[in-house]
Amino acid sequence: MSPRDPDRPVAVFDSGVGGLTVLHELLVRLPQEDYLYLGDTARFPYGDKTPAQLRAFALQIADALLARDAKLLVVACNSATAAALPALREHVAAVAPHVDVLGVVGNESRLAVAASATGRIGLLATVATVASGAYARAVADVDPAAHLTSVACPDLASQIQDDAIVTDEMLATVRGYCAPLREAGVDTVILGCTHYPLVAPMLQRTLGPGVRLVSSGEAMAASVADALAARGIGRPAGGPEGTYRFLATGDAETFRAQGARFLQLPIGSVEHVGLPLEVTA
Amino acid sequence: MSPRDPDRPVAVFDSGVGGLTVLHELLVRLPQEDYLYLGDTARFPYGDKTPAQLRAFALQIADALLARDAKLLVVACNSATAAALPALREHVAAVAPHVDVLGVVGNESRLAVAASATGRIGLLATVATVASGAYARAVADVDPAAHLTSVACPDLASQIQDDAIVTDEMLATVRGYCAPLREAGVDTVILGCTHYPLVAPMLQRTLGPGVRLVSSGEAMAASVADALAARGIGRPAGGPEGTYRFLATGDAETFRAQGARFLQLPIGSVEHVGLPLEVTA
Repeated sequence: MSPRDPDRPVAVFDSGVGGLTVLHELLVRLPQEDYLYLGDTARFPYGDKTPAQLRAFALQIADALLARDAKLLVVACNSATAAALPALREHVAAVAPHVDVLGVVGNESRLAVAASATGRIGLLATVATVASGAYARAVADVDPAAHLTSVACPDLASQIQDDAIVTDEMLATVRGYCAPLREAGVDTVILGCTHYPLVAPMLQRTLGPGVRLVSSGEAMAASVADALAARGIGRPAGGPEGTYRFLATGDAETFRAQGARFLQLPIGSVEHVGLPLEVTA
Repeated sequence: MSPRDPDRPVAVFDSGVGGLTVLHELLVRLPQEDYLYLGDTARFPYGDKTPAQLRAFALQIADALLARDAKLLVVACNSATAAALPALREHVAAVAPHVDVLGVVGNESRLAVAASATGRIGLLATVATVASGAYARAVADVDPAAHLTSVACPDLASQIQDDAIVTDEMLATVRGYCAPLREAGVDTVILGCTHYPLVAPMLQRTLGPGVRLVSSGEAMAASVADALAARGIGRPAGGPEGTYRFLATGDAETFRAQGARFLQLPIGSVEHVGLPLEVTA
């Protein structure tokens, strides 16, 4: 396909099924596009990987998605964005200069600052994401006077992905993670991992009614629309619905079951792609 | 207990687990209260029952909950509210004049009219609720110029309650129900059954980004707080967290599994209560 063909898919990737919360927002707001989603479930979770590992994973995945004619890459994983976005952009600019790379972190930081009346903002994220300092920098860029309280949540993404049912143990874990945010009196909490919106009801109950939850998917659709428009490669709004398909590096059946549960979307067929990722489709 | 004792529970009932979406909002906004939830799962679904049946069920359930010291009754079921609220209020006023009865329908109709810019509002509800005309009256009461497009959705509540996974068939069913609302160009849709918020992501994708979904739980917490304050029987805000417990007329284990899945709340023990409902605790 030509690099200017609007019929190429928008590619979205995550360590697992959490990025489906971002895909959901794209399906709501830009239903006319085709989507290609890759879940790197064989190497899930990303939250305990090193920055060098995450950069290597992101570059491999980008090559695999570019080989499948992606017209835009969306990094729907906060850990990968925090560790790898600059390296990934440099790589893609070299091998596919017509393709933009969008990441999370920046958008929800702007949303959180705009939503907060007090400037006291909380962050729940993976160990890797908190350690990167990406949110602290992003929030300070928007409002140097804002105060960010960050809490690393080991294993929470894994618990959410694996457990269909919220247990007393998970609830106790979540209460522990939220306690410092309650003590800090935050009025806005960034869900800094794309898995966390899947337990938004539990988080809202734990944090209380006055706290606004901000997620990565919320602002992504506008960024995608803007990027496609700037390149002149968006499909016209109001046109027929596009398609969506899935790749998983781990077990395809597990991905289908988890994905359907979380996204309320019939997942259909999932293509298993082996590691190391093939760079031909 | 004395009828002025604030330590009595707020009672919430529904035909099944759908009312847990209302309970969720109460737990977020009024966590200091104790809650007693009854799911009439043995007679689920209510959407295909007659108004006379629904009135009889509601009165039985009210008696059972009053016998368990309820300080307020919340009818978290649109079909029961639409068919039985006046009869239920009359009954409770006679046997327990210190207890208020709150229903759905009115609140979300006011919310929908306030949210709609065009006055074109959609309703998705059970056959019984649409047939009652309760929403048409409630919306017209708030804004006689508003135009309500109502769609009865046979079996949708049952499909949601029974199926953990959204299937292609359910998606096709939902698309069919939403088609008249899209054709009518509505900008706001009332989810007129407490089960429907459980598939809000699918509904939002089907209806499109410009459509605001309004649910029954959203405004209920404020109504409960107002009613308790007016009687002077609310627990003070900011106090210790209350408790919650569950009654089910059907299988307790099924209720626990469905409830935990939908509410993301560890359900703990569920007490099976046989039919006809015992009026002593």
